[in-house]
Amino acid sequence: MAHEEGSLNDIRAILGNDIAIKAYREGKLPFPEGSIIARVAWSYVPSQENNKTFGRPQSFVAGPPTNGVQFMVKDSKKYAATGGWGFGHFNDGKPADQAVLQSCFPCHQAITSRDLVFTRYSP
Amino acid sequence: MAHEEGSLNDIRAILGNDIAIKAYREGKLPFPEGSIIARVAWSYVPSQENNKTFGRPQSFVAGPPTNGVQFMVKDSKKYAATGGWGFGHFNDGKPADQAVLQSCFPCHQAITSRDLVFTRYSP
Repeated sequence: MAHEEGSLNDIRAILGNDIAIKAYREGKLPFPEGSIIARVAWSYVPSQENNKTFGRPQSFVAGPPTNGVQFMVKDSKKYAATGGWGFGHFNDGKPADQAVLQSCFPCHQAITSRDLVFTRYSP
Repeated sequence: MAHEEGSLNDIRAILGNDIAIKAYREGKLPFPEGSIIARVAWSYVPSQENNKTFGRPQSFVAGPPTNGVQFMVKDSKKYAATGGWGFGHFNDGKPADQAVLQSCFPCHQAITSRDLVFTRYSP
């Protein structure tokens, strides 16, 4: 889970298939073939209701979904050109165009020390 | 999911058993007998790593677990004195003492319009 500031301005959850979660839990790097990591996100909005109830700024909650749904799929051969990861992005269930997808790897490659995965595991 | 400010200062997820999630999705109130809602939380910490990578304040992430694990269990007869909900709080797997539990209902009863449940469902 995380809150992203700036133009993203969301609250998000990172999900993994069994292969990815097992690797996360064991701290295994690089992630094994077949790992899939997904990111879902909602607008980050103050809860006027909670703030009123508690009489102070108290809560930011999940509003409507935003920023699409993203995937990383580990296949070292198929995606050799982008560090072994295939990147996916869907808006309203439709795949984003190539220009969007080409924006993934340049940022993720900054985190080569953890196999291009920003999110750390929190037990 | 939510971020709570002030003394809580956490990022949290709200989970439900099948009965509770079904009621959430259908917008059904009050929650049916047998509904169980759980709250887990982690410390809300800035990601120095991400901020450095992007060159700006960018991410708040989940640090170590904090604020225990909480439950609400719907049993209108057993918990008639507290709006039909039993409240539970565990720190490191151990149940909190009675004084902590008695602090739950006074706040939750502020939200009678939604059967004492603060969290709204975000699709």
